[in-house]
Amino acid sequence: SSSDSSSQVKPETDRKQPGYETLVVTSEDSITKIMMNRPAKKNALTIQMYREIMLALEAASKDDSTIIVLTGNGDYYSSGNDLMNFMNTPPGEMEKEAKNGAILLRDFVGCFIDFPKPLVAVINGPAVGISVTILGLFDLVYASDRATFHTPFTHLGQSPEGCSSYTFPKIMGQAKAAEMLMFGKKLTAREACAQGLVTEVFPDSTFQKEVWTRLKAYSKLPRNALHISKQSIRNLEKEKLHAVNAEENSVLQERWLSDECMNAVMSFFSRKAKL
Amino acid sequence: SSSDSSSQVKPETDRKQPGYETLVVTSEDSITKIMMNRPAKKNALTIQMYREIMLALEAASKDDSTIIVLTGNGDYYSSGNDLMNFMNTPPGEMEKEAKNGAILLRDFVGCFIDFPKPLVAVINGPAVGISVTILGLFDLVYASDRATFHTPFTHLGQSPEGCSSYTFPKIMGQAKAAEMLMFGKKLTAREACAQGLVTEVFPDSTFQKEVWTRLKAYSKLPRNALHISKQSIRNLEKEKLHAVNAEENSVLQERWLSDECMNAVMSFFSRKAKL
Amino acid sequence: SSSDSSSQVKPETDRKQPGYETLVVTSEDSITKIMMNRPAKKNALTIQMYREIMLALEAASKDDSTIIVLTGNGDYYSSGNDLMNFMNTPPGEMEKEAKNGAILLRDFVGCFIDFPKPLVAVINGPAVGISVTILGLFDLVYASDRATFHTPFTHLGQSPEGCSSYTFPKIMGQAKAAEMLMFGKKLTAREACAQGLVTEVFPDSTFQKEVWTRLKAYSKLPRNALHISKQSIRNLEKEKLHAVNAEENSVLQERWLSDECMNAVMSFFSRKAKL
Repeated sequence: SSSDSSSQVKPETDRKQPGYETLVVTSEDSITKIMMNRPAKKNALTIQMYREIMLALEAASKDDSTIIVLTGNGDYYSSGNDLMNFMNTPPGEMEKEAKNGAILLRDFVGCFIDFPKPLVAVINGPAVGISVTILGLFDLVYASDRATFHTPFTHLGQSPEGCSSYTFPKIMGQAKAAEMLMFGKKLTAREACAQGLVTEVFPDSTFQKEVWTRLKAYSKLPRNALHISKQSIRNLEKEKLHAVNAEENSVLQERWLSDECMNAVMSFFSRKAKL
Repeated sequence: SSSDSSSQVKPETDRKQPGYETLVVTSEDSITKIMMNRPAKKNALTIQMYREIMLALEAASKDDSTIIVLTGNGDYYSSGNDLMNFMNTPPGEMEKEAKNGAILLRDFVGCFIDFPKPLVAVINGPAVGISVTILGLFDLVYASDRATFHTPFTHLGQSPEGCSSYTFPKIMGQAKAAEMLMFGKKLTAREACAQGLVTEVFPDSTFQKEVWTRLKAYSKLPRNALHISKQSIRNLEKEKLHAVNAEENSVLQERWLSDECMNAVMSFFSRKAKL
Repeated sequence: SSSDSSSQVKPETDRKQPGYETLVVTSEDSITKIMMNRPAKKNALTIQMYREIMLALEAASKDDSTIIVLTGNGDYYSSGNDLMNFMNTPPGEMEKEAKNGAILLRDFVGCFIDFPKPLVAVINGPAVGISVTILGLFDLVYASDRATFHTPFTHLGQSPEGCSSYTFPKIMGQAKAAEMLMFGKKLTAREACAQGLVTEVFPDSTFQKEVWTRLKAYSKLPRNALHISKQSIRNLEKEKLHAVNAEENSVLQERWLSDECMNAVMSFFSRKAKL
């Protein structure tokens, strides 16, 4: 179901790292690429996928790569948190599951906060929810002009995560950030670029070619200088980011147990079932 | 004296809240609208008006509204602090009045810092001084293309307030903020939008219609999620904002007693008298 | 070697302050202008030049000027740190020299952090390295459309200074800042303006005339109000800026002694020698 232009070239078997079910992880040219690989589900993030991305980041932080890329296979970058994560819980287990979910999400975001090498998001198509909010923790964000950026938290009775309650107002000012984070406005790639969330937008037809040509050139830069520069910049706010992350997930944990959230998620599935 | 397009529809008597002389406060569709209502004086802020806005915000924080709007009646949004506030003080009372003025201003700005619900500025025309500087404390700022944004503090021997010495450099960077706050450059609505102070600009002819249509849609969003999201974002810098507010008003209190300021204000009135 | 349009008018002898070898410092119309004056070397910053700029800033902070301008003579604004600074050290003295270099740079940047009056950069041509990174410490940055902005630290095995690891992400967001600071992307004047690093861009043919007309008008503003406003804004982050400055130079001191940096600088000179 993917268009010719944005779809990823199938990685050679010998470069593909084993052990991942929801990702394809490859290393080449000093670049480790983590590709979310549930294209039929628009790369919605399941609990397994959160865990595998954390494992892949942990491994990439120690391999000999210079740059790490996160991207999606198929038409979507990622449709965000898989709402089925909410649906499999027996009523008596809700509080426990909300707590576990908040811990998982906090640890997931924490991996991006602490990641020691340049992080590049290659946004091949629409991005939703947490796949958008963590972009403030990346160093470069390249987007196809087919990409969109959407964080409909309020519509689902929820609240911002991924440190976006801190990074988005810092990047674009509250007057722009609130329309995304509080009122769920969907941005085009060009709008997201004008507001500083995206580094550069490329035509979808040449997106993969242009981005990877550039990244290969960047990956030849002096490796230590690059890593130390990234760490110097990020260290200045690492403590703040971890505090924001903890607070956001504490608020979310309560949100998940609220009637408002449960009704909104139920309503989402009932609308979807009618389509 | 108001143009057809930007003027407000007269609120129905039965929706209008009693008890305000300088404002018209109405509630409808889960939106409480606070309209500054001294159109013949370009909605310049008198001491009474500061106090009434604080009372209206206090009431709105507790009513059943989801969103709160501040706007102006007539051609202007607001021409800022009414300089007549400076003119009614007997010479022996100057220090006391400066102190009282600084306390009033600090409390006024504090109400915006602490406000727990989404705050929307509907900028129907030119905005000056403190009506501009507090925009960094709003969540959405919608502007008619007839609006302008002007903070001529230095020209009047004064210094920035409304937390703008913190919010403006954060929103637009010092190279843009200093031209406004230190050198009094007046921005068009489009410039203010490009620099992140304004969420979106609308043609004046359709401004009221487009903005209220959007706000009515937003006001139907899950109310608690919206309020909690706003509070999560704002709580991250509330302490800093109160400290900035206190410092700004302490500096202003001294400025008001300086010869430079008194001469600049006198000169303003003498120029005005000659027109 | 300078174009007609961007070159500076030769200052009158009687306005020129004596005692500088690498600068021309003049005062007129309440503006003190510090002009870097090594046009044949593209105003590359030697150790002497760092020291003279610090002395000129110290003097300007106490003279009767309202505004201080930093600009360059000739085609370039400044090509940044003179890499010859690295080449004159006997092998046994490297650690000592790296330490001295870091102290000099820290003190140089500290002068900009603490400077009490409005600082204006008049960017007459290409700007490189530290002449770019300290722009986040200025209040206004006016650029000719011939100017470019380039910080190729990583290419030289080095890391950001001038507080840019703090100011650049604040001004433009990490997605834009990282491409400059980590990957050495060169910006045009218009790009730098869109991202908030530059206040305004002017056609090169009218640059000097338009900028100086504006600055002369600004220099007539109430002087104390202007200085106090600047200090109020900058005081909010002065402590943070000094901490960032200390940390950046500590990292740089180690970088300068790394093989990666030495090889990159050697390679720079060997490429240059072949031209």
